[in-house]
Amino acid sequence: MDAALDGFYSIIPAGGIGSRLWPLSRADAPKFLHDLTGSGSTLLRGTWDRLAPLSGEQRIMVVTGRAHRAAVEAQLPELRDVNVVLESEPKDSSAAIGLAAAILRKREPDVIIGSFAADHVIADVRGFRRSVTHAVAAARAGRIALIGITPTEPAIGFGYIRAGDAAEIDGAHDARTVTGFVEKPDLATARRYLAEGDYLWNASMFIARADVLLEQMRGAKPDLVAGLEELAEAWDDPAARGPAVDRIWPHLEKIAIDYSVAEPAARVGKLVVIPGDFDWDDVGDFASIAKLRSGGRAGELAILADGATVLSDHASGIVVSQSKRVISLIGVQDIVVVDTPDALLVTTSEHAQRVKSVVDALKLSGRSEVL
Amino acid sequence: MDAALDGFYSIIPAGGIGSRLWPLSRADAPKFLHDLTGSGSTLLRGTWDRLAPLSGEQRIMVVTGRAHRAAVEAQLPELRDVNVVLESEPKDSSAAIGLAAAILRKREPDVIIGSFAADHVIADVRGFRRSVTHAVAAARAGRIALIGITPTEPAIGFGYIRAGDAAEIDGAHDARTVTGFVEKPDLATARRYLAEGDYLWNASMFIARADVLLEQMRGAKPDLVAGLEELAEAWDDPAARGPAVDRIWPHLEKIAIDYSVAEPAARVGKLVVIPGDFDWDDVGDFASIAKLRSGGRAGELAILADGATVLSDHASGIVVSQSKRVISLIGVQDIVVVDTPDALLVTTSEHAQRVKSVVDALKLSGRSEVL
Repeated sequence: MDAALDGFYSIIPAGGIGSRLWPLSRADAPKFLHDLTGSGSTLLRGTWDRLAPLSGEQRIMVVTGRAHRAAVEAQLPELRDVNVVLESEPKDSSAAIGLAAAILRKREPDVIIGSFAADHVIADVRGFRRSVTHAVAAARAGRIALIGITPTEPAIGFGYIRAGDAAEIDGAHDARTVTGFVEKPDLATARRYLAEGDYLWNASMFIARADVLLEQMRGAKPDLVAGLEELAEAWDDPAARGPAVDRIWPHLEKIAIDYSVAEPAARVGKLVVIPGDFDWDDVGDFASIAKLRSGGRAGELAILADGATVLSDHASGIVVSQSKRVISLIGVQDIVVVDTPDALLVTTSEHAQRVKSVVDALKLSGRSEVL
Repeated sequence: MDAALDGFYSIIPAGGIGSRLWPLSRADAPKFLHDLTGSGSTLLRGTWDRLAPLSGEQRIMVVTGRAHRAAVEAQLPELRDVNVVLESEPKDSSAAIGLAAAILRKREPDVIIGSFAADHVIADVRGFRRSVTHAVAAARAGRIALIGITPTEPAIGFGYIRAGDAAEIDGAHDARTVTGFVEKPDLATARRYLAEGDYLWNASMFIARADVLLEQMRGAKPDLVAGLEELAEAWDDPAARGPAVDRIWPHLEKIAIDYSVAEPAARVGKLVVIPGDFDWDDVGDFASIAKLRSGGRAGELAILADGATVLSDHASGIVVSQSKRVISLIGVQDIVVVDTPDALLVTTSEHAQRVKSVVDALKLSGRSEVL
């Protein structure tokens, strides 16, 4: 085992519900609390296990909603109380990561933080460590670093990072300056990106000195950072924290860290990307789970069902069940069947991204009890 | 309203489970006890309502399994006790219809019986009555009559009756002699049948004098008919019926009436067929229900679900649910989803006939609790 990286602290924002994984993922059972890969661990636990060797398990902070505290602590018995940051309401990633950065900077002024989503999957832990090590070196040199995944196919479900020249940083020979971002492209564009080689998948991995990150954010969102610093000032005082949260948190601006930090930093040449040559998946929809579970082989049926009996006759795709039922699939290809006590989804891999529209429709029609 | 047909008695054998409609149809909830058309009536009740004007509701006999007695009587409160024939175990259609014929002949020697499946659908009641009236005329003339449905498409899910020359029977000008039977043909053959015009769908409707039917059966199966007559002799004696059933019923040969009566009668020129120019469906599988429910229009989603909320986004086919769940279908065409408390089926119209193979597999694997 390699030692932990010097001065490094991991942050896990555990927030998103994962609407595209409805009806499995719910407000009260978000994506990061599910074992979607059949590994035996939830995605959150897998994230923790991946980060613990890099920062030490004493140095992993989790930012999550109040409602998820018990479930998160059950998954992570090693998580220290001082490393739990509870959001009274969701305020997007700038507030979540920014507050963690502000708290940690107050405790340890030159801390280097790395933020990693709670609900992604990486199998190649050594490759991941290599990239994080380079990103930490870039952070130590005063840069803000992303880890971008080298594409293996023309994916249309991810955002892309455009990499420019070599950044020439000691200990991060592969770092390149970031020259721009692209939202989920169409297939033709994705194919071009794959062929050109200068585009990497945006895996939402931010690594920077906490003070550098906050100063960058202050340039775009001074009020937000002022609020976060006021919160951080009160955070470790038990008498002061509660009132400060009640006073400040509800008024913080909701904005993704991509807009408050990454894009402005890229514009001034401060943002670098470390190309990650490891496997990675954001497990964004059921098609992605089917692919992960079948190892990418077509024509297979992935089964995520502990208690159900699944009978398959010329069926492929994925079946997820929380029931003890007999589930019979006959002659359906690339099917997605998700069977929960109060909701049933039937779609295909091709349409898996459209699940979010069902969630939106249910919200609009007031059926929030199944969301 | 037209009057009942003179001397006519209806028989409804209510036996088959309808394996191709699993998991909706079950041993304890067979096909005839379901409202598969959305009419508000079960198929059995619909059959009764169609026959009552033809024979009078006092003259409809139902042959069913002991386990279904309560459910049948709940559906048919008008059903008289003397018209209930309970099978202690299934013995196929020769025994079921033959016993009813033998009981009725003993009570009324020149009775004309008509046997009609409990789980078929006919909307055109006037067309049905016209054909039954002709069939009764043929029966009165000493013939055994079938009603065959004029095909409207090259169906491969039905058996066919080959019609020969006009039978020249008073009151049944359209009766033709039957020259043969064909089991479910392949598509090319079905197309040829449709083009040739001499083939009719076998709707399992038998009309004959009870004595003529039994004498015909006796020729092929003398022991069976002897047993049925012995049963009939004891039937209306409360002290004798039980012992006779226990002694005789278990040993009766299991054979379809097609082989004990129809084919032998056809060989001697005694069988005639009345072409039925009315709609008819045996509701044999979920594809057939989807078609019935959508009026044959492609691209529609038929919904048989009282309590469930069905959300459809570019979906067609049929969804059947006994739950109160939210069911969401996205981008699935000609899909078949059947959602019951202990079993879930997902297939397509194209593969609907293969549902029976699942039932067979469940039987083999000892999962009879879901059958």
